[in-house]
Order: sequence, then structure tokens, then C-alpha cells
Amino acid sequence: MNKKFALTIHGGAGTLLRENISPEQEKNIHAALRAALDAGSNVLSSCGSAMDAVVASVTVLEDSELFNAGRGAVFTNEATHELDASIMCGKTNGAGAVCSVKHIQNPIQLSRMVMERSEHVLLNGEGAEEFARLQGVSFVSNSFFSTDFRRQQLEEARLAGKVQLDHADKEKKFGTVGAVALDINGNLAAGTSTGGMTNKRFGRVGDSPLIGCGTFADNHTCAVSCTGWGEFFIKNVVAYDVAARMRYGKMSLRDACHELVMKKLAEQGADGGLIAIDKDGQVEMVFNSPGMYRGSVVMGEEPFTAIF
Amino acid sequence: MNKKFALTIHGGAGTLLRENISPEQEKNIHAALRAALDAGSNVLSSCGSAMDAVVASVTVLEDSELFNAGRGAVFTNEATHELDASIMCGKTNGAGAVCSVKHIQNPIQLSRMVMERSEHVLLNGEGAEEFARLQGVSFVSNSFFSTDFRRQQLEEARLAGKVQLDHADKEKKFGTVGAVALDINGNLAAGTSTGGMTNKRFGRVGDSPLIGCGTFADNHTCAVSCTGWGEFFIKNVVAYDVAARMRYGKMSLRDACHELVMKKLAEQGADGGLIAIDKDGQVEMVFNSPGMYRGSVVMGEEPFTAIF
Repeated sequence: MNKKFALTIHGGAGTLLRENISPEQEKNIHAALRAALDAGSNVLSSCGSAMDAVVASVTVLEDSELFNAGRGAVFTNEATHELDASIMCGKTNGAGAVCSVKHIQNPIQLSRMVMERSEHVLLNGEGAEEFARLQGVSFVSNSFFSTDFRRQQLEEARLAGKVQLDHADKEKKFGTVGAVALDINGNLAAGTSTGGMTNKRFGRVGDSPLIGCGTFADNHTCAVSCTGWGEFFIKNVVAYDVAARMRYGKMSLRDACHELVMKKLAEQGADGGLIAIDKDGQVEMVFNSPGMYRGSVVMGEEPFTAIF
Repeated sequence: MNKKFALTIHGGAGTLLRENISPEQEKNIHAALRAALDAGSNVLSSCGSAMDAVVASVTVLEDSELFNAGRGAVFTNEATHELDASIMCGKTNGAGAVCSVKHIQNPIQLSRMVMERSEHVLLNGEGAEEFARLQGVSFVSNSFFSTDFRRQQLEEARLAGKVQLDHADKEKKFGTVGAVALDINGNLAAGTSTGGMTNKRFGRVGDSPLIGCGTFADNHTCAVSCTGWGEFFIKNVVAYDVAARMRYGKMSLRDACHELVMKKLAEQGADGGLIAIDKDGQVEMVFNSPGMYRGSVVMGEEPFTAIF
């Protein structure tokens, strides 16, 4: 046992500017991030696993209407919701993911079931839901995920004729949630969940359900969850690239994250960020956009939450 | 211009044993591999691009009934065909992919359209087909892909109650096709296409449509196309791992491929292989299974094809 646990979460990145967020919204976001941290750190402080902590934190973020994952997810072009998620265990390198599910309240929990109860990693759409049904998962109607705020964003995106991220017109916001944890047994885990892009069409899938792109975990190096412009995060295989820089390039977690996010991705105009923890409990929350909803807690220290 | 071109293709890996393949089948397989090589090398020898060569070669392999991609694809549990493909350009790092399409004769060509004509990388199912329709792609009926041989495999898999790869009972065969090319301008490209697993359920997606896992290309390092037990290839982010070992670990293409396929993957029981070309035109075709349908041609040399 390394006797130290660490947890970090994100709720998306983008053009988060203080002048666009009211004091009340800011307060609500901090409270939601804190609730997600508490859910995960309660697991870790009771000697629970990194995997359990990641699921606990991401579930809270999915259930919050404030973030683009689970309830509060953005609308597709067809005014429906399609959700993606993935999870990976650093100890076993086991992984599970679902994409384009429409009736699963907590896609992160279904991802874990795919990892633990199937021979597969990625299950898609109705097939993923058939698997969920056989696992006894209860279904919600697609409108369960709807909120007035997101419907208004869809109307604005339709009027503008744009496939948008989850942003108002002047903003660029990548709504995704994620958590990364190290438990006292030295095991790492990472999970990511998203509602995708407002007004999205063509069954677009971003990086969030893709192992290596949106999510990666390996006890030898680190665990990572990403949020940002999904297409760039896919092409750069971002989550695994952090681990590869550490493993093959002998970089520290900090250098690996900064080189990747602040240089390589920034030079491409690939807005976004990531959270990561290495096997020694070092925590990184790095973003090249004006803000990223984020938080962290390390054993024995006060929890931290921030937006800008 | 480096004035040298190179091309390599695969048609799947697995328990390919001489005693299970008739001389006539063997002859047909060599002829099909040769036809695919010719299609690609005709492009390259006329100063065409690596991207055009990859599409030309994979199209021939998709159109051949002998391989599990395009026509001749395996059946899902519902006795339908669901096809996946991906492509990546080493010069631009542009990428395109489709998963679970049912009416597209050549998914590799649709993947290229996603890369060149959309802002996205991965399009899924009906959405991908909606995109195809807007691009003027003609559709085929799902039964276009059916062959008696694959239907018989489905019946056997159903009787055995197994989700199988594209194999007879004693075999383990990973039917996927792919091509990797270097053109005379020094540009690399890679593409992969598959029909997935016989009797597959739950919308299972393997590594073939996933950038970084089944396909990767970057002019700084190499281009890679994989075939094998998809779940392991996802968790090991195989295609990108070859590039990362070269870039960060300063390994040669040969060492990177061999360390990964013959050690890391073999130790996990992750059957399969990959084809790769580095920026200098070095060609690798590496597999830890008894056989891999494969071929290569380097400018000025005789084409090579092999099974075992």
C-alpha cells in the first residue's frame, strides 16, 4: 500500500469566462464539483478502489444537470440525446465503453458492466442497450435527459445552422465529465462520460468513449480523462499519448501533460484539457482553453475546485 | 521526393494452417492479394498518393469474397452484416472512420469521405449512412455482402452458442483487411476495413474503426494497420503504440513492431498481427498467430504474397 489516495475530476473545458457566469451559477458549479469529489473520496478514504471512486464521482456529475453528460446532456439534431462513456482499470488494463446509448441513466456504470461482464470493450447503440437489459439495468425515457437550457441551445444552434459543441454562440465549450483516481493499493482508474455536441448529426462519435483517446489507465504510468475538441483528441490519441511519453520518453506526468496540451494540441488549435494522476499520486489538471470545470482531492488535504 | 514507394496489405490473421487450406483456395488467396497489391502499386508507380493507393488496395480486398470485409463479410447474430473501417493520412494526420454501416459497398471509401468532407472523424451506423447519402454514395442491400460460406459459419457459431471470430470451430481467424503505403513524396497512409465477428451481438465494435487502435499514420514515424483480437488491440492502443515507441523510445520500426506483437501482445494471448511502413520505406508484416494473409511490394522489386 502506498497509503496515499488521490482523485481529480472535470466537468468540461472551453471558453468559460467569469463575465458569462453569474455568481449563483458559479456557486452551483463549485457545489456540484465538490459533491462529485466527496462521492469519490468517500470511497477512497474507506479503502475503496480507484474504479469504485471513478464510478461514484462520474455518476454524480452525470446526474447533475449542470454538465453535458447523463441528465443535462445536449440535444442532437433530431432533438434526442445520445450518450457515450468509457472506463479503464489501470491494474488489469481492462476497459469498457458504450456509445450512442439513449436510455441509460448512468453510461459510466454501463461501461463498467461492459468491462466486467462481457468479453468486449466497446458496445454500440441498441446493441449496448440490449446488453444493459440482460444485465438488469433499468431504462429511462430519452426525455429524462432533457433540460430547458439544453433545448434552448439546440434552437440557437439550429437557427445558426451549426453543429455546435455545448456552447452559446460566443462560447466554445466542451461538455464532458470525467474522473481519475489512485487508491491506497496503488491502483489507478479513469472514466469519461459525455452527451456529445449540440445539434450533432450523422452519428458523430467523439473521443469520450474511445479507449486511448478520451480515457486511459495503466498502473505503470498514469490514468487520464480528457475533455475537448473530440476530433483532435482522437487524431492525437491524447489519453494514451500521456502514458507513452512517460513510458517510452521517460517524462514526468507534469511534463507529458504540458508538452501535449499546451504545445502539441494548442498549436493545432485543439482546445481542451485533461486530468491525470500518476502512480505516485501526482495530480495534473491541464487545459489550453480559458477554463475547465475541475477539482481534486489528495489524502490529508482540503478538496480543491475551480473553473477559470 | 524520396523516389521510393512501398505498399503492404493484409487480409486477416489467425489459425491459418496449411492442412486446412486446399491448394485451390491457396491459389485464389494469393491471386486476390496480388490483385490488391497491383491496384495500389499502380497508383504509387504513377506518382499517385499513399492515400489513393491505400483506398485502391483495400477496395479490392473489400470486393473479394475471400476476406471478412465488404462482400464476404461475416454475419452478426441477427444474420445481418455490420461493417467498420478507418483511414488516416500521415501528412495531415487527418482521419476518417465509420462503424456499423450496413449498406455501403466500400466502407474504406466512405471513411475517406468522412475525413475529407466532414468535420468529424468517426460516424456511426445510420448517421454515417445519412452522411453517405448526402455525398451521393450509392447503397447496396445488406444481402449484397452475404455469401454461402459465411452463412454456414453463422449456423455453426449459433449451434456452438458462441460469439465467434470468422473461424471454423477449430480455428481462430481474425478477418480484417488493411493496407499501408508510402508514396514517392514521402507521405504515409493507412487503412483498415472489417466485417467484425461472426454471430456478434450487442453492437460490438472492434479495433478496426478506431484511430490509434486499428489504424494510425504519421509522416514523422510510420503508418500501421492491425488485424487481431480487437479487444486486446483496443486496450493496448496498438497502432499508435508502434508510432509512440519509435517517436519517444527511439526504436526502429522493426523493433517497435516485434516488441509489441511478439512480446507484449503475445504474453497477453492477444492473437493477431499488423503491417507497417516507416517514413524511410521499411516494411514490416508481423504476427504472433500461425498465419496472416499478407503481401508487399517495394518499388523496383517483385511483389510478395504469403499466408503462413
